[in-house]
Amino acid sequence: MTIPFDIVRCAYAELVVTDLAAARAFYVDVLGLVVTEEDENVICLRTLEEFIHHNLVLRRGPVAAAAALAFRVRTPEDVDRAERHYRDLGCRTERRASGFVPGVGDAVRVIDPLGFPYEFFFEVEHVERLAWRYDLYTPGALVRLDHFNQVTPDVPAGRDYLESIGFRVTEDIQDADGVTYAAWLHRKDTVHDTALTGGDGPRLHHIAFSTHEKHNIIAICDKLGALRLSDVIERGPGRHGVSNAFYLYLRDPDGHRVEIYTQDYYTGDPDNPVVTWDVHDNQRRDWWGNPVVPSWYTEASLVLDLDGEPQPVVHREQPSELAVTIGADGFSYTREGDTEKGFKLGQQL
Amino acid sequence: MTIPFDIVRCAYAELVVTDLAAARAFYVDVLGLVVTEEDENVICLRTLEEFIHHNLVLRRGPVAAAAALAFRVRTPEDVDRAERHYRDLGCRTERRASGFVPGVGDAVRVIDPLGFPYEFFFEVEHVERLAWRYDLYTPGALVRLDHFNQVTPDVPAGRDYLESIGFRVTEDIQDADGVTYAAWLHRKDTVHDTALTGGDGPRLHHIAFSTHEKHNIIAICDKLGALRLSDVIERGPGRHGVSNAFYLYLRDPDGHRVEIYTQDYYTGDPDNPVVTWDVHDNQRRDWWGNPVVPSWYTEASLVLDLDGEPQPVVHREQPSELAVTIGADGFSYTREGDTEKGFKLGQQL
Amino acid sequence: MTIPFDIVRCAYAELVVTDLAAARAFYVDVLGLVVTEEDENVICLRTLEEFIHHNLVLRRGPVAAAAALAFRVRTPEDVDRAERHYRDLGCRTERRASGFVPGVGDAVRVIDPLGFPYEFFFEVEHVERLAWRYDLYTPGALVRLDHFNQVTPDVPAGRDYLESIGFRVTEDIQDADGVTYAAWLHRKDTVHDTALTGGDGPRLHHIAFSTHEKHNIIAICDKLGALRLSDVIERGPGRHGVSNAFYLYLRDPDGHRVEIYTQDYYTGDPDNPVVTWDVHDNQRRDWWGNPVVPSWYTEASLVLDLDGEPQPVVHREQPSELAVTIGADGFSYTREGDTEKGFKLGQQL
Amino acid sequence: MTIPFDIVRCAYAELVVTDLAAARAFYVDVLGLVVTEEDENVICLRTLEEFIHHNLVLRRGPVAAAAALAFRVRTPEDVDRAERHYRDLGCRTERRASGFVPGVGDAVRVIDPLGFPYEFFFEVEHVERLAWRYDLYTPGALVRLDHFNQVTPDVPAGRDYLESIGFRVTEDIQDADGVTYAAWLHRKDTVHDTALTGGDGPRLHHIAFSTHEKHNIIAICDKLGALRLSDVIERGPGRHGVSNAFYLYLRDPDGHRVEIYTQDYYTGDPDNPVVTWDVHDNQRRDWWGNPVVPSWYTEASLVLDLDGEPQPVVHREQPSELAVTIGADGFSYTREGDTEKGFKLGQQL
Repeated sequence: MTIPFDIVRCAYAELVVTDLAAARAFYVDVLGLVVTEEDENVICLRTLEEFIHHNLVLRRGPVAAAAALAFRVRTPEDVDRAERHYRDLGCRTERRASGFVPGVGDAVRVIDPLGFPYEFFFEVEHVERLAWRYDLYTPGALVRLDHFNQVTPDVPAGRDYLESIGFRVTEDIQDADGVTYAAWLHRKDTVHDTALTGGDGPRLHHIAFSTHEKHNIIAICDKLGALRLSDVIERGPGRHGVSNAFYLYLRDPDGHRVEIYTQDYYTGDPDNPVVTWDVHDNQRRDWWGNPVVPSWYTEASLVLDLDGEPQPVVHREQPSELAVTIGADGFSYTREGDTEKGFKLGQQL
Repeated sequence: MTIPFDIVRCAYAELVVTDLAAARAFYVDVLGLVVTEEDENVICLRTLEEFIHHNLVLRRGPVAAAAALAFRVRTPEDVDRAERHYRDLGCRTERRASGFVPGVGDAVRVIDPLGFPYEFFFEVEHVERLAWRYDLYTPGALVRLDHFNQVTPDVPAGRDYLESIGFRVTEDIQDADGVTYAAWLHRKDTVHDTALTGGDGPRLHHIAFSTHEKHNIIAICDKLGALRLSDVIERGPGRHGVSNAFYLYLRDPDGHRVEIYTQDYYTGDPDNPVVTWDVHDNQRRDWWGNPVVPSWYTEASLVLDLDGEPQPVVHREQPSELAVTIGADGFSYTREGDTEKGFKLGQQL
Repeated sequence: MTIPFDIVRCAYAELVVTDLAAARAFYVDVLGLVVTEEDENVICLRTLEEFIHHNLVLRRGPVAAAAALAFRVRTPEDVDRAERHYRDLGCRTERRASGFVPGVGDAVRVIDPLGFPYEFFFEVEHVERLAWRYDLYTPGALVRLDHFNQVTPDVPAGRDYLESIGFRVTEDIQDADGVTYAAWLHRKDTVHDTALTGGDGPRLHHIAFSTHEKHNIIAICDKLGALRLSDVIERGPGRHGVSNAFYLYLRDPDGHRVEIYTQDYYTGDPDNPVVTWDVHDNQRRDWWGNPVVPSWYTEASLVLDLDGEPQPVVHREQPSELAVTIGADGFSYTREGDTEKGFKLGQQL
Repeated sequence: MTIPFDIVRCAYAELVVTDLAAARAFYVDVLGLVVTEEDENVICLRTLEEFIHHNLVLRRGPVAAAAALAFRVRTPEDVDRAERHYRDLGCRTERRASGFVPGVGDAVRVIDPLGFPYEFFFEVEHVERLAWRYDLYTPGALVRLDHFNQVTPDVPAGRDYLESIGFRVTEDIQDADGVTYAAWLHRKDTVHDTALTGGDGPRLHHIAFSTHEKHNIIAICDKLGALRLSDVIERGPGRHGVSNAFYLYLRDPDGHRVEIYTQDYYTGDPDNPVVTWDVHDNQRRDWWGNPVVPSWYTEASLVLDLDGEPQPVVHREQPSELAVTIGADGFSYTREGDTEKGFKLGQQL
């Protein structure tokens, strides 16, 4: 199968934050991301194993939102191809030879068919890969950007679109009626570079950074407790069913959700088996059956158009995962066929 | 200060279970405790670093309950002293030269002033300490019995009693009015050999086993997920505020609560500082502010008298920790002085 | 750049062993690899996260040797292309529509320009990916095949060849005179799918399996100690300089070397920076400066031709890494420019 | 059995260092010990879980040596008893009501029958126990002082002496002729508060600090590599046979040896089984059979008398563990009865 342009991986997100100092305190002082470059309006941050200029750009702005989800492409020509592809789709595009953010060169930004601001670039400044700089590691060191997660009303439509630009599905959540609640799609050899979560969108559900081991994620929780910031922990830590990774969800000072993530599996083979989870399986989102807090389902970040204005949010018409699993009419099971004990969360209320 | 008899440590619990095969499947097949000896009515289990006959006795019986909380004393004479001490207190005692369970010799059982069946013994069969037998380790290997936790209506009274037999408090939970909600007391060099949790009692809140590292506890959760038994996870994993240990609470097939626990701190100095937590501090029970499920506060195991009959449960008259922290009139804070956001659980409902 | 055929990743090795029962005890009972299929002559083994039939085939035979290093290609047509490519190179090839080993279909084996028996296949039986089967995990669980490592006399020549079929170099070891001692090359997004170690060859230096975390590798050592098999530990555990991974080298009952490996870094970007290490840098092979045992440099497994006969071994004419670093005339430094303390090993003798 | 005075635990060591700035860089900047108090001549350092003033005192002086090994006793009166006891033994003692080092009050120092400068104290300043201050933790955080290790020519004589002041043996190394090469003795509930290593003495072999988990020790190695200080790693990391702990040995800038140690077992029962290891068992010192470097056997720190002069070193007349295990006439086995392969180190030369 031919692809219109060759995406290598998710590379960085640009987030607008309303209080840059507070955001810096969170991402640098608490989470330990490394500042590559900063001024009074913009901070470029990277993970310890990264060799490109940044994985996260924080930009001061009036409304908290995601300004771009940026993917690296394989060649400079793939930027041309991407631009052409989106133009042909009738999408708005903007090309900047000197890039949109520090450290990145020729790039195109588009508002894609799902309403998200995607960027594609090849040219980027190389910086020191700090992988061997163990003198800089903290107990909760973030070593890679792993993925984005986007909220969109119509997951199958979104999936078709992402497959059309070369992404491949690794896992999804469905019900017996064929409703798809979420899907995970990858370019690099991991479970995802981005995922689609069914809900009112376009909105950014979260961005995710990797640690080496599980204890690193626990160390982040412990540090948040020590700083009396435990209320930024929204969900977890836990083990995902989907992806099999160990996870934690935090909320930054603007409410942007950040996942810390480790140990999913290799997906690089062309016939990597797709795993489909039943939406009523109570271990799909947390393998240990621990409850997903409602805010995790309902809250997400606005995304911006190419003028910097928030994209309007479209309501999801299909069933909501929250409602079908933990609402009054919802149900979840631990063992297929279980009828007796409804689900774990109910046990706890 | 003189002590009436010299307790070395908590040594084993005897639990009555209604389905011995189900209990065996849980403690042996799932948790990996080692069978020292068993017959159709009784199973004696130990942890991997133990050198005495057992840390847990499961006995088949009609009503799920705790039959004994057994402590090892320093010398054979301490058994005599313990017997005398409880007789002097007017407590019912029973001495058996050949012990109450396999592998344990001369022992005395008493119904103590709080209504709990305590056993004191010195004589015990030595068995192989399997510490070096890494060929027997599982990913979630339990290496020591760490402590008991008892529910009692009047914590200060219980604390006075336990201090009178040589226990020392390491931590407690109080409020500004001087109500004590829980206390932790030790003999060995850890945070506790037993703890008192304020509530309707006497009941056994839980027994706790140690792992070496945090990932071992995560491995237990992961295995429970794989076995589609995630609903036996009641609370956690998490980091305790009190004790600073990493924890997990499970419920066995009879509902007996088992904690898996690792990495508290050394307490052996005579002036080890007592840590007092405010009951409204939302990080006291979980350092990450994750909610304590109501069942954890309200449910516990019956305890038996020396005839094997369940002890009557006396209602706690003092305020309930559940009610003052997460009930309609309760509150918890992340940062002292916080007023805006009530508490994390509320945020999630 | 165009590639003659598209290799996805290293997929499995076929090793001839002289005592199949002893090899099974090592790989299955000690290391915990999963048996997909076996008979009296052949055992097919896989790691816990694998979904293809196997990562290792053990075949009973008269002489311990590597019979094949097999790579998965992206499409069935890539098998044709590979066959054509090697024929055009004048290499001996053998195509078998039903494969050479159980579970693998249409495949071609070649004796490549370096003298190694390479296999390329696409068709393969899918089996259950056991990633979520935590009930099957052992403390030292092997979750993926990571790479091969081949001994060849002329590393630059070997590197040119591997680059010509699409591999890309991530790291190498050189000296100031331009001698290359070793090179690491990848197709999937890790530091390598195979590496070239300068020495008398063609021989197989080792195959490597991944664990999730470092403690899993320690658990393997601990278990070997418990089984009184510690003498199968040849080198490590330690931290590599090259690749930044945590490692351990074992020798199987036939002397085949097996590495256990975890936590290298992402290499999937087209301009992933190449890291070149100075051969005299004492942290290149072990980041902690711990000595590399001579056997690790000198011993390796024979490889077979397509008739099952051992390939003749050609002497390396270029300088030996062992000799230039720890021999009488060799030297290593901890800090560039160090003169005082020669190197750590010397300190220890 | 009555004891002449009641030692609680090993509490701190006072080390004389020739370059205080270099020592500070090592213990504070590299290892992350916390400075409680310091001036131009003395630095008082503690571990993260400690609540007494310090676990290590570095004092500037002309000759690198150990000035004191200090033990905490249970009551102020135990200091009197200790003073009396050593006087009765004819040992030189010095009592200082205001202590010998900052933060410690009334204390007695003695030159004990083995020639070591022991201190006993009860009064000590309490400081913040930083256990919950995860914002201060580093990846290799040292959380407790675990033990001392002393070199003495006659181990059985030393053992008798230590037992006479209340220590109890947990493990030792012997040969078939009854020679004792080393012994481990404890007061707190761990394998040791101090150990005796047979050799020319009195000298201090090492002091040991604990981490929570094994990865913390690996992190220290990784950081030393990043700082190009890997040559301070003398031995390890590895798993001890004796004690079953995970270990690492470093040398500070003056050559003082520091062990990093984690996960031995509970020893508090009065009949805790003694483990005796055969000196020829190649897994006794390293469970994985990795070689013990000769310097580990032969080098140690001088100890000072009460005037601050180095104690003369007396030669050990009994066989040397180094000589009987790895010398020309020595041997070690992996499996009892092994004859074929001498020992692992030989394999490597």
